[in-house]
Amino acid sequence: MAADNLITSLQNPKIKRLVALQQKSSERRSSGIFVIEGIRELLHCLEAGYVIDTLFYCSEIMGNTPEVQKIYTLAETVRSYQVTKEVYAKIAYRDSTEGVMAEVQVRTLSLHNLHLPENPLIVVLESVEKPGNLGAILRSADAAAADAVIVCDPLTDLFNPNLIRSSLGAFFSVPCLTCSSQECIDFLKKKNIRILTAQLQDSHLYYNTDMRGGTAIVLGTESTGLTNVWREAADAHIRIPMLGKLDSLNVSVSAAILLFEAVRQRT
Amino acid sequence: MAADNLITSLQNPKIKRLVALQQKSSERRSSGIFVIEGIRELLHCLEAGYVIDTLFYCSEIMGNTPEVQKIYTLAETVRSYQVTKEVYAKIAYRDSTEGVMAEVQVRTLSLHNLHLPENPLIVVLESVEKPGNLGAILRSADAAAADAVIVCDPLTDLFNPNLIRSSLGAFFSVPCLTCSSQECIDFLKKKNIRILTAQLQDSHLYYNTDMRGGTAIVLGTESTGLTNVWREAADAHIRIPMLGKLDSLNVSVSAAILLFEAVRQRT
Repeated sequence: MAADNLITSLQNPKIKRLVALQQKSSERRSSGIFVIEGIRELLHCLEAGYVIDTLFYCSEIMGNTPEVQKIYTLAETVRSYQVTKEVYAKIAYRDSTEGVMAEVQVRTLSLHNLHLPENPLIVVLESVEKPGNLGAILRSADAAAADAVIVCDPLTDLFNPNLIRSSLGAFFSVPCLTCSSQECIDFLKKKNIRILTAQLQDSHLYYNTDMRGGTAIVLGTESTGLTNVWREAADAHIRIPMLGKLDSLNVSVSAAILLFEAVRQRT
Repeated sequence: MAADNLITSLQNPKIKRLVALQQKSSERRSSGIFVIEGIRELLHCLEAGYVIDTLFYCSEIMGNTPEVQKIYTLAETVRSYQVTKEVYAKIAYRDSTEGVMAEVQVRTLSLHNLHLPENPLIVVLESVEKPGNLGAILRSADAAAADAVIVCDPLTDLFNPNLIRSSLGAFFSVPCLTCSSQECIDFLKKKNIRILTAQLQDSHLYYNTDMRGGTAIVLGTESTGLTNVWREAADAHIRIPMLGKLDSLNVSVSAAILLFEAVRQRT
Protein backbone atom coordinates (compact mmCIF):
# COMPACT_ATOMS: atom_id res chain seq x y z
CA MET A 1 0.00 0.00 0.00
CA ALA A 2 1.40 3.40 -0.93
CA ALA A 3 2.30 5.51 2.11
CA ASP A 4 0.31 8.46 0.73
CA ASN A 5 -2.80 6.40 1.40
CA LEU A 6 -2.08 6.24 5.13
CA ILE A 7 -4.29 8.41 7.35
CA THR A 8 -2.74 9.27 10.70
CA SER A 9 -4.95 12.12 11.95
CA LEU A 10 -8.55 12.33 13.16
CA GLN A 11 -8.60 15.80 11.62
CA ASN A 12 -8.30 14.31 8.14
CA PRO A 13 -11.40 15.44 6.21
CA LYS A 14 -12.07 11.87 5.02
CA ILE A 15 -12.26 10.70 8.63
CA LYS A 16 -14.50 13.60 9.58
CA ARG A 17 -16.86 12.68 6.75
CA LEU A 18 -16.87 9.01 7.76
CA VAL A 19 -17.83 9.90 11.33
CA ALA A 20 -20.57 12.26 10.10
CA LEU A 21 -21.99 9.47 7.92
CA GLN A 22 -22.08 7.14 10.90
CA GLN A 23 -23.76 9.61 13.19
CA LYS A 24 -26.15 11.61 11.04
CA SER A 25 -29.02 10.26 8.96
CA SER A 26 -29.19 13.66 7.20
CA GLU A 27 -25.62 13.16 6.02
CA ARG A 28 -26.47 9.68 4.73
CA ARG A 29 -29.56 10.99 2.96
CA SER A 30 -27.86 13.89 1.24
CA SER A 31 -24.84 11.88 0.10
CA GLY A 32 -26.52 8.54 -0.67
CA ILE A 33 -23.72 6.82 1.25
CA PHE A 34 -23.84 4.69 4.41
CA VAL A 35 -21.19 3.04 6.56
CA ILE A 36 -20.59 -0.58 7.47
CA GLU A 37 -18.03 -2.05 9.82
CA GLY A 38 -16.58 -5.51 10.18
CA ILE A 39 -15.23 -8.19 7.87
CA ARG A 40 -18.34 -10.34 7.81
CA GLU A 41 -20.62 -7.36 7.13
CA LEU A 42 -18.41 -6.23 4.27
CA LEU A 43 -18.43 -9.68 2.68
CA HIS A 44 -22.23 -9.97 3.04
CA CYS A 45 -22.53 -6.50 1.53
CA LEU A 46 -20.37 -7.40 -1.48
CA GLU A 47 -22.23 -10.64 -1.99
CA ALA A 48 -25.49 -8.69 -2.10
CA GLY A 49 -24.07 -6.56 -4.92
CA TYR A 50 -23.70 -3.24 -3.12
CA VAL A 51 -21.16 -0.80 -4.52
CA ILE A 52 -18.29 0.10 -2.19
CA ASP A 53 -17.45 3.78 -2.41
CA THR A 54 -14.42 3.91 -0.11
CA LEU A 55 -12.65 1.38 2.07
CA PHE A 56 -10.81 2.17 5.32
CA TYR A 57 -8.71 -0.48 6.97
CA CYS A 58 -6.10 -0.96 9.64
CA SER A 59 -3.59 -3.73 8.87
CA GLU A 60 -2.38 -3.76 12.47
CA ILE A 61 -5.83 -4.91 13.63
CA MET A 62 -7.02 -7.04 10.71
CA GLY A 63 -4.80 -10.08 11.09
CA ASN A 64 -4.35 -12.38 8.12
CA THR A 65 -7.22 -14.87 7.78
CA PRO A 66 -8.55 -16.00 4.37
CA GLU A 67 -11.43 -13.55 4.83
CA VAL A 68 -9.00 -10.72 5.44
CA GLN A 69 -7.24 -11.67 2.21
CA LYS A 70 -10.49 -10.97 0.39
CA ILE A 71 -10.53 -7.50 1.91
CA TYR A 72 -6.97 -6.86 0.66
CA THR A 73 -8.02 -8.01 -2.81
CA LEU A 74 -10.95 -5.61 -2.66
CA ALA A 75 -8.60 -2.81 -1.57
CA GLU A 76 -6.77 -3.16 -4.90
CA THR A 77 -9.92 -2.38 -6.85
CA VAL A 78 -11.69 0.39 -4.93
CA ARG A 79 -10.62 3.70 -3.41
CA SER A 80 -9.06 2.72 -0.11
CA TYR A 81 -7.12 4.17 2.77
CA GLN A 82 -5.08 2.67 5.53
CA VAL A 83 -5.58 4.19 8.96
CA THR A 84 -3.43 3.93 12.06
CA LYS A 85 -4.55 1.94 15.09
CA GLU A 86 -5.16 5.18 16.97
CA VAL A 87 -7.39 6.59 14.24
CA TYR A 88 -9.28 3.30 13.92
CA ALA A 89 -9.96 3.15 17.66
CA LYS A 90 -11.70 6.51 17.40
CA ILE A 91 -13.88 5.75 14.40
CA ALA A 92 -14.93 2.21 15.38
CA TYR A 93 -18.38 2.00 16.96
CA ARG A 94 -18.06 -1.58 18.13
CA ASP A 95 -16.56 -3.03 21.27
CA SER A 96 -14.60 -5.65 19.39
CA THR A 97 -13.24 -4.14 16.25
CA GLU A 98 -12.11 -5.95 13.16
CA GLY A 99 -10.15 -3.19 11.48
CA VAL A 100 -12.37 -2.62 8.44
CA MET A 101 -14.93 0.05 7.61
CA ALA A 102 -16.47 1.00 4.28
CA GLU A 103 -18.55 3.76 2.81
CA VAL A 104 -21.18 2.07 0.65
CA GLN A 105 -23.65 3.42 -1.89
CA VAL A 106 -27.25 3.41 -0.66
CA ARG A 107 -29.57 1.21 -2.73
CA THR A 108 -33.22 1.96 -2.26
CA LEU A 109 -35.87 -0.67 -2.74
CA SER A 110 -39.48 0.41 -3.27
CA LEU A 111 -42.84 -1.36 -3.43
CA HIS A 112 -42.72 -1.01 -7.22
CA ASN A 113 -39.58 -3.08 -7.61
CA LEU A 114 -40.24 -5.55 -4.78
CA HIS A 115 -40.48 -9.02 -6.30
CA LEU A 116 -42.52 -11.48 -4.27
CA PRO A 117 -43.12 -15.21 -4.68
CA GLU A 118 -46.54 -16.81 -4.44
CA ASN A 119 -47.96 -16.75 -0.89
CA PRO A 120 -45.33 -14.35 0.42
CA LEU A 121 -44.56 -13.89 4.11
CA ILE A 122 -43.95 -10.25 4.99
CA VAL A 123 -43.28 -8.35 8.21
CA VAL A 124 -44.62 -4.80 8.41
CA LEU A 125 -43.44 -2.51 11.19
CA GLU A 126 -45.20 0.72 11.92
CA SER A 127 -42.86 3.38 13.28
CA VAL A 128 -40.43 1.01 14.99
CA GLU A 129 -38.45 3.12 17.44
CA LYS A 130 -35.12 1.42 17.99
CA PRO A 131 -32.69 0.59 15.18
CA GLY A 132 -31.47 -2.38 17.27
CA ASN A 133 -34.98 -3.87 17.31
CA LEU A 134 -35.30 -3.54 13.55
CA GLY A 135 -31.92 -5.23 13.12
CA ALA A 136 -33.03 -8.07 15.39
CA ILE A 137 -36.26 -8.46 13.37
CA LEU A 138 -34.25 -8.67 10.13
CA ARG A 139 -32.18 -11.44 11.70
CA SER A 140 -35.32 -13.44 12.58
CA ALA A 141 -36.86 -12.64 9.18
CA ASP A 142 -33.81 -14.14 7.49
CA ALA A 143 -34.10 -17.30 9.61
CA ALA A 144 -37.81 -17.63 8.80
CA ALA A 145 -37.17 -16.95 5.09
CA ALA A 146 -39.55 -14.00 5.14
CA ASP A 147 -39.78 -12.32 1.73
CA ALA A 148 -39.61 -8.70 2.89
CA VAL A 149 -39.58 -6.37 5.88
CA ILE A 150 -41.49 -3.14 5.26
CA VAL A 151 -41.09 -0.22 7.65
CA CYS A 152 -43.95 2.28 7.48
CA ASP A 153 -43.57 5.91 8.50
CA PRO A 154 -40.12 5.16 9.93
CA LEU A 155 -38.57 7.12 12.78
CA THR A 156 -35.10 5.93 11.79
CA ASP A 157 -33.45 5.49 8.40
CA LEU A 158 -32.65 1.98 7.26
CA PHE A 159 -28.93 2.73 7.01
CA ASN A 160 -28.38 3.40 10.72
CA PRO A 161 -25.15 1.65 11.84
CA ASN A 162 -26.84 0.08 14.90
CA LEU A 163 -29.51 -1.44 12.68
CA ILE A 164 -27.00 -2.95 10.27
CA ARG A 165 -24.81 -4.23 13.08
CA SER A 166 -27.61 -5.85 15.08
CA SER A 167 -28.92 -7.60 11.96
CA LEU A 168 -25.64 -9.58 11.79
CA GLY A 169 -25.75 -9.44 7.99
CA ALA A 170 -29.50 -10.03 7.53
CA PHE A 171 -29.72 -6.41 6.37
CA PHE A 172 -28.10 -7.65 3.15
CA SER A 173 -30.14 -10.84 2.75
CA VAL A 174 -33.72 -9.73 3.51
CA PRO A 175 -35.39 -7.18 1.19
CA CYS A 176 -36.19 -4.17 3.36
CA LEU A 177 -37.89 -0.93 2.38
CA THR A 178 -39.78 2.04 3.76
CA CYS A 179 -43.05 3.63 2.65
CA SER A 180 -46.13 5.25 4.17
CA SER A 181 -48.73 3.10 5.94
CA GLN A 182 -51.33 3.95 3.28
CA GLU A 183 -49.02 2.97 0.42
CA CYS A 184 -48.29 -0.31 2.16
CA ILE A 185 -51.98 -1.08 2.81
CA ASP A 186 -52.86 -0.33 -0.83
CA PHE A 187 -50.04 -2.60 -1.99
CA LEU A 188 -51.05 -5.51 0.27
CA LYS A 189 -54.74 -5.24 -0.69
CA LYS A 190 -53.90 -5.15 -4.39
CA LYS A 191 -51.70 -8.25 -4.06
CA ASN A 192 -54.33 -10.09 -1.97
CA ILE A 193 -51.92 -10.47 0.92
CA ARG A 194 -53.78 -10.93 4.22
CA ILE A 195 -53.08 -8.24 6.81
CA LEU A 196 -52.72 -9.67 10.32
CA THR A 197 -52.28 -6.96 12.93
CA ALA A 198 -50.71 -7.81 16.28
CA GLN A 199 -52.86 -6.22 19.00
CA LEU A 200 -54.19 -7.30 22.37
CA GLN A 201 -57.74 -5.97 22.01
CA ASP A 202 -60.42 -7.67 19.88
CA SER A 203 -58.04 -10.32 18.65
CA HIS A 204 -57.66 -14.04 18.07
CA LEU A 205 -54.84 -16.19 19.39
CA TYR A 206 -52.15 -16.11 16.70
CA TYR A 207 -51.87 -19.90 16.47
CA ASN A 208 -55.55 -20.19 15.60
CA THR A 209 -55.07 -17.91 12.58
CA ASP A 210 -54.26 -19.27 9.14
CA MET A 211 -50.92 -17.94 7.86
CA ARG A 212 -50.45 -20.34 4.94
CA GLY A 213 -51.55 -17.95 2.19
CA GLY A 214 -49.91 -14.61 1.42
CA THR A 215 -49.49 -13.05 4.87
CA ALA A 216 -48.33 -9.71 6.23
CA ILE A 217 -47.67 -9.68 9.98
CA VAL A 218 -48.03 -6.07 11.15
CA LEU A 219 -46.56 -4.82 14.43
CA GLY A 220 -46.62 -1.39 16.09
CA THR A 221 -44.40 0.16 18.71
CA GLU A 222 -44.06 -1.40 22.16
CA SER A 223 -45.33 1.73 23.83
CA THR A 224 -48.38 2.69 21.76
CA GLY A 225 -49.11 -0.28 19.47
CA LEU A 226 -50.63 0.13 16.03
CA THR A 227 -52.57 3.15 14.79
CA ASN A 228 -56.20 2.89 13.72
CA VAL A 229 -55.38 2.99 10.03
CA TRP A 230 -53.80 -0.45 10.40
CA ARG A 231 -56.41 -1.89 12.77
CA GLU A 232 -59.13 -0.96 10.30
CA ALA A 233 -57.25 -2.30 7.28
CA ALA A 234 -56.69 -5.67 8.96
CA ASP A 235 -58.12 -8.95 7.71
CA ALA A 236 -57.61 -10.38 11.21
CA HIS A 237 -56.36 -9.12 14.55
CA ILE A 238 -54.01 -11.54 16.27
CA ARG A 239 -52.46 -11.64 19.73
CA ILE A 240 -49.76 -13.52 21.54
CA PRO A 241 -51.26 -14.52 24.90
CA MET A 242 -49.71 -12.66 27.84
CA LEU A 243 -49.95 -15.21 30.64
CA GLY A 244 -47.79 -13.50 33.28
CA LYS A 245 -47.57 -10.17 35.06
CA LEU A 246 -46.16 -8.02 32.27
CA ASP A 247 -48.29 -6.55 29.52
CA SER A 248 -46.01 -6.69 26.49
CA LEU A 249 -43.21 -8.57 24.77
CA ASN A 250 -40.22 -7.02 23.05
CA VAL A 251 -41.30 -6.18 19.49
CA SER A 252 -38.51 -8.27 17.95
CA VAL A 253 -39.52 -11.25 20.12
CA SER A 254 -43.17 -10.85 19.05
CA ALA A 255 -42.14 -10.71 15.40
CA ALA A 256 -40.08 -13.91 15.75
CA ILE A 257 -42.88 -15.84 17.49
CA LEU A 258 -45.37 -14.88 14.76
CA LEU A 259 -42.93 -15.52 11.89
CA PHE A 260 -42.10 -18.99 13.13
CA GLU A 261 -45.78 -19.84 13.61
CA ALA A 262 -46.12 -19.07 9.88
CA VAL A 263 -43.11 -21.33 9.21
CA ARG A 264 -44.72 -24.11 11.28
CA GLN A 265 -48.03 -23.84 9.45
CA ARG A 266 -46.36 -23.78 6.05
CA THR A 267 -44.35 -26.99 6.51
CA MET B 1 -37.69 15.05 54.68
CA ALA B 2 -35.04 16.15 57.16
CA ALA B 3 -32.25 18.14 55.53
CA ASP B 4 -29.63 15.93 57.18
CA ASN B 5 -30.79 13.18 54.87
CA LEU B 6 -29.84 15.16 51.76
CA ILE B 7 -26.76 13.95 49.89
CA THR B 8 -25.09 16.61 47.77
CA SER B 9 -21.69 15.07 46.99
CA LEU B 10 -20.54 12.15 44.87
CA GLN B 11 -17.79 11.66 47.45
CA ASN B 12 -20.37 10.68 50.05
CA PRO B 13 -19.48 7.12 51.18
CA LYS B 14 -23.09 5.96 50.71
CA ILE B 15 -22.97 7.01 47.08
CA LYS B 16 -19.61 5.35 46.57
CA ARG B 17 -21.02 2.12 47.97
CA LEU B 18 -24.12 2.36 45.77
CA VAL B 19 -21.98 2.74 42.65
CA ALA B 20 -19.76 -0.18 43.70
CA LEU B 21 -22.85 -2.37 44.17
CA GLN B 22 -24.03 -1.47 40.68
CA GLN B 23 -20.73 -2.15 39.02
CA LYS B 24 -19.20 -5.10 40.86
CA SER B 25 -20.68 -8.55 41.28
CA SER B 26 -18.05 -9.23 43.98
CA GLU B 27 -19.46 -6.32 45.98
CA ARG B 28 -23.01 -7.69 45.60
CA ARG B 29 -21.88 -11.16 46.62
CA SER B 30 -20.00 -10.08 49.72
CA SER B 31 -22.72 -7.74 50.97
CA GLY B 32 -25.82 -9.67 49.91
CA ILE B 33 -27.24 -6.42 48.49
CA PHE B 34 -28.17 -5.49 44.93
CA VAL B 35 -29.42 -2.30 43.30
CA ILE B 36 -32.59 -1.54 41.39
CA GLU B 37 -33.58 1.64 39.61
CA GLY B 38 -36.94 3.00 38.53
CA ILE B 39 -40.38 3.39 40.01
CA ARG B 40 -41.96 0.39 38.31
CA GLU B 41 -39.04 -1.90 39.24
CA LEU B 42 -39.24 -0.80 42.86
CA LEU B 43 -42.99 -1.48 43.03
CA HIS B 44 -42.54 -4.92 41.39
CA CYS B 45 -39.75 -5.63 43.86
CA LEU B 46 -41.91 -4.69 46.87
CA GLU B 47 -44.82 -6.72 45.56
CA ALA B 48 -42.52 -9.75 45.31
CA GLY B 49 -41.68 -9.36 49.00
CA TYR B 50 -38.06 -8.27 48.73
CA VAL B 51 -36.62 -6.30 51.66
CA ILE B 52 -35.46 -2.77 50.84
CA ASP B 53 -32.23 -1.94 52.63
CA THR B 54 -31.81 1.70 51.61
CA LEU B 55 -33.75 4.05 49.36
CA PHE B 56 -32.22 6.94 47.37
CA TYR B 57 -34.48 9.41 45.62
CA CYS B 58 -34.46 12.79 43.96
CA SER B 59 -37.68 14.77 44.44
CA GLU B 60 -36.73 17.15 41.64
CA ILE B 61 -36.90 14.30 39.11
CA MET B 62 -39.64 12.08 40.55
CA GLY B 63 -42.70 14.21 39.82
CA ASN B 64 -45.88 13.50 41.74
CA THR B 65 -47.88 10.63 40.26
CA PRO B 66 -49.84 8.16 42.42
CA GLU B 67 -46.96 5.70 41.98
CA VAL B 68 -44.48 8.28 43.21
CA GLN B 69 -46.69 8.76 46.28
CA LYS B 70 -46.15 5.09 47.09
CA ILE B 71 -42.41 5.70 46.99
CA TYR B 72 -42.76 8.61 49.44
CA THR B 73 -44.80 6.37 51.73
CA LEU B 74 -42.06 3.75 51.53
CA ALA B 75 -39.45 6.41 52.33
CA GLU B 76 -41.15 6.95 55.70
CA THR B 77 -40.58 3.33 56.71
CA VAL B 78 -37.09 2.45 55.43
CA ARG B 79 -33.68 4.08 55.63
CA SER B 80 -33.76 6.68 52.88
CA TYR B 81 -31.75 9.57 51.51
CA GLN B 82 -32.58 12.39 49.19
CA VAL B 83 -29.97 13.18 46.57
CA THR B 84 -29.53 16.28 44.43
CA LYS B 85 -30.23 16.23 40.71
CA GLU B 86 -26.50 16.43 40.03
CA VAL B 87 -25.73 13.43 42.22
CA TYR B 88 -28.61 11.44 40.71
CA ALA B 89 -27.44 12.13 37.17
CA LYS B 90 -24.11 10.52 38.03
CA ILE B 91 -25.46 7.39 39.71
CA ALA B 92 -28.29 6.63 37.26
CA TYR B 93 -27.43 3.97 34.67
CA ARG B 94 -30.44 4.57 32.48
CA ASP B 95 -30.99 7.04 29.69
CA SER B 96 -34.35 8.13 31.01
CA THR B 97 -34.18 8.34 34.75
CA GLU B 98 -37.05 8.22 37.17
CA GLY B 99 -35.32 9.57 40.27
CA VAL B 100 -35.44 6.43 42.42
CA MET B 101 -32.83 3.82 43.29
CA ALA B 102 -32.80 1.25 46.06
CA GLU B 103 -30.38 -1.13 47.69
CA VAL B 104 -32.25 -4.40 48.13
CA GLN B 105 -31.44 -7.58 50.06
CA VAL B 106 -30.49 -10.50 47.83
CA ARG B 107 -32.86 -13.48 48.10
CA THR B 108 -31.45 -16.72 46.79
CA LEU B 109 -33.65 -19.44 45.40
CA SER B 110 -32.25 -22.98 45.06
CA LEU B 111 -33.43 -26.21 43.49
CA HIS B 112 -34.37 -27.46 46.97
CA ASN B 113 -36.92 -24.73 47.57
CA LEU B 114 -38.20 -24.40 43.99
CA HIS B 115 -41.89 -25.29 43.99
CA LEU B 116 -43.19 -26.55 40.67
CA PRO B 117 -46.71 -27.37 39.50
CA GLU B 118 -47.60 -30.53 37.60
CA ASN B 119 -46.14 -30.58 34.07
CA PRO B 120 -43.90 -27.59 34.63
CA LEU B 121 -42.39 -25.53 31.83
CA ILE B 122 -38.79 -24.53 32.55
CA VAL B 123 -36.08 -22.68 30.65
CA VAL B 124 -32.50 -23.75 31.32
CA LEU B 125 -29.63 -21.59 30.08
CA GLU B 126 -26.09 -22.86 30.03
CA SER B 127 -23.53 -20.12 30.60
CA VAL B 128 -25.58 -17.32 29.02
CA GLU B 129 -23.13 -14.54 28.25
CA LYS B 130 -25.05 -11.28 28.24
CA PRO B 131 -27.12 -10.05 31.19
CA GLY B 132 -29.39 -8.26 28.70
CA ASN B 133 -30.22 -11.55 26.98
CA LEU B 134 -31.09 -13.19 30.29
CA GLY B 135 -33.34 -10.24 31.16
CA ALA B 136 -35.08 -10.55 27.78
CA ILE B 137 -35.59 -14.29 28.37
CA LEU B 138 -37.16 -13.60 31.77
CA ARG B 139 -39.56 -11.19 30.07
CA SER B 140 -40.65 -13.86 27.57
CA ALA B 141 -40.76 -16.50 30.33
CA ASP B 142 -43.18 -14.30 32.27
CA ALA B 143 -45.40 -13.89 29.19
CA ALA B 144 -45.39 -17.66 28.56
CA ALA B 145 -46.07 -18.38 32.27
CA ALA B 146 -42.92 -20.48 32.53
CA ASP B 147 -42.44 -21.87 36.01
CA ALA B 148 -38.71 -21.19 36.37
CA VAL B 149 -35.58 -20.01 34.61
CA ILE B 150 -32.46 -21.91 35.69
CA VAL B 151 -29.02 -20.60 34.78
CA CYS B 152 -26.29 -23.24 34.90
CA ASP B 153 -22.64 -22.42 35.46
CA PRO B 154 -23.42 -18.71 35.03
CA LEU B 155 -20.89 -16.18 33.75
CA THR B 156 -22.86 -13.34 35.29
CA ASP B 157 -24.64 -13.04 38.65
CA LEU B 158 -28.43 -12.79 38.65
CA PHE B 159 -28.37 -9.39 40.30
CA ASN B 160 -26.63 -7.53 37.49
CA PRO B 161 -28.39 -4.17 36.90
CA ASN B 162 -28.60 -4.72 33.12
CA LEU B 163 -30.32 -8.04 33.67
CA ILE B 164 -32.91 -6.60 36.04
CA ARG B 165 -33.51 -3.58 33.82
CA SER B 166 -33.94 -5.54 30.59
CA SER B 167 -36.39 -7.94 32.28
CA LEU B 168 -38.80 -5.00 32.78
CA GLY B 169 -39.90 -6.45 36.12
CA ALA B 170 -40.01 -10.13 35.11
CA PHE B 171 -36.98 -10.63 37.34
CA PHE B 172 -39.44 -10.31 40.24
CA SER B 173 -42.23 -12.46 38.79
CA VAL B 174 -40.39 -15.50 37.36
CA PRO B 175 -38.52 -17.81 39.78
CA CYS B 176 -34.87 -17.68 38.70
CA LEU B 177 -31.91 -19.51 40.17
CA THR B 178 -28.39 -20.70 39.42
CA CYS B 179 -26.76 -24.09 39.90
CA SER B 180 -24.28 -26.38 38.16
CA SER B 181 -25.29 -28.24 35.00
CA GLN B 182 -24.97 -31.58 36.79
CA GLU B 183 -27.19 -30.49 39.69
CA CYS B 184 -29.77 -29.29 37.20
CA ILE B 185 -29.71 -32.51 35.17
CA ASP B 186 -30.06 -34.62 38.34
CA PHE B 187 -33.00 -32.47 39.44
CA LEU B 188 -34.81 -32.69 36.09
CA LYS B 189 -34.31 -36.47 35.84
CA LYS B 190 -35.55 -37.00 39.38
CA LYS B 191 -38.67 -34.94 38.68
CA ASN B 192 -39.31 -36.70 35.33
CA ILE B 193 -39.08 -33.43 33.45
CA ARG B 194 -38.15 -34.00 29.81
CA ILE B 195 -34.91 -32.34 28.73
CA LEU B 196 -35.15 -30.77 25.25
CA THR B 197 -31.84 -29.34 24.10
CA ALA B 198 -31.78 -26.71 21.36
CA GLN B 199 -29.07 -27.66 18.86
CA LEU B 200 -28.78 -27.73 15.10
CA GLN B 201 -27.09 -31.13 14.74
CA ASP B 202 -28.96 -34.46 15.12
CA SER B 203 -32.20 -32.76 16.01
CA HIS B 204 -35.93 -32.72 15.30
CA LEU B 205 -37.93 -29.68 14.30
CA TYR B 206 -39.16 -28.15 17.54
CA TYR B 207 -42.80 -28.09 16.48
CA ASN B 208 -42.79 -31.86 15.93
CA THR B 209 -41.72 -32.40 19.55
CA ASP B 210 -44.25 -32.93 22.35
CA MET B 211 -43.96 -30.24 25.02
CA ARG B 212 -47.20 -30.92 26.86
CA GLY B 213 -45.71 -32.84 29.78
CA GLY B 214 -43.10 -31.49 32.17
CA THR B 215 -40.58 -29.82 29.86
CA ALA B 216 -37.20 -28.14 30.24
CA ILE B 217 -36.05 -26.18 27.20
CA VAL B 218 -32.26 -25.99 27.35
CA LEU B 219 -30.24 -23.40 25.41
CA GLY B 220 -26.50 -22.77 25.18
CA THR B 221 -24.54 -19.71 24.18
CA GLU B 222 -24.91 -18.17 20.71
CA SER B 223 -21.24 -18.68 19.96
CA THR B 224 -20.56 -22.22 21.13
CA GLY B 225 -23.97 -23.83 21.82
CA LEU B 226 -24.47 -26.47 24.49
CA THR B 227 -21.75 -28.63 26.02
CA ASN B 228 -21.79 -32.42 25.69
CA VAL B 229 -23.03 -32.97 29.21
CA TRP B 230 -26.35 -31.48 28.16
CA ARG B 231 -26.50 -33.09 24.72
CA GLU B 232 -26.03 -36.49 26.33
CA ALA B 233 -28.56 -35.87 29.10
CA ALA B 234 -31.24 -34.83 26.60
CA ASP B 235 -34.49 -36.72 26.04
CA ALA B 236 -34.76 -35.04 22.65
CA HIS B 237 -32.68 -32.63 20.58
CA ILE B 238 -34.74 -29.89 18.96
CA ARG B 239 -33.96 -27.21 16.41
CA ILE B 240 -35.55 -24.10 15.01
CA PRO B 241 -35.15 -24.32 11.22
CA MET B 242 -32.71 -21.75 9.83
CA LEU B 243 -34.14 -21.05 6.39
CA GLY B 244 -32.03 -18.04 5.40
CA LYS B 245 -28.37 -17.11 5.09
CA LEU B 246 -27.48 -16.72 8.76
CA ASP B 247 -26.67 -19.65 11.02
CA SER B 248 -28.15 -18.62 14.35
CA LEU B 249 -30.89 -16.68 16.09
CA ASN B 250 -30.49 -14.46 19.12
CA VAL B 251 -30.71 -16.73 22.20
CA SER B 252 -33.58 -14.74 23.69
CA VAL B 253 -35.49 -15.00 20.40
CA SER B 254 -34.89 -18.77 20.30
CA ALA B 255 -36.11 -19.12 23.88
CA ALA B 256 -39.30 -17.18 23.09
CA ILE B 257 -40.10 -19.21 19.96
CA LEU B 258 -39.70 -22.49 21.89
CA LEU B 259 -41.62 -21.27 24.95
CA PHE B 260 -44.58 -20.15 22.88
CA GLU B 261 -44.64 -23.44 20.98
CA ALA B 262 -45.09 -25.07 24.40
CA VAL B 263 -47.88 -22.57 25.15
CA ARG B 264 -49.55 -23.42 21.83
CA GLN B 265 -49.37 -27.16 22.44
CA ARG B 266 -50.69 -26.83 25.98
CA THR B 267 -53.85 -24.88 25.07
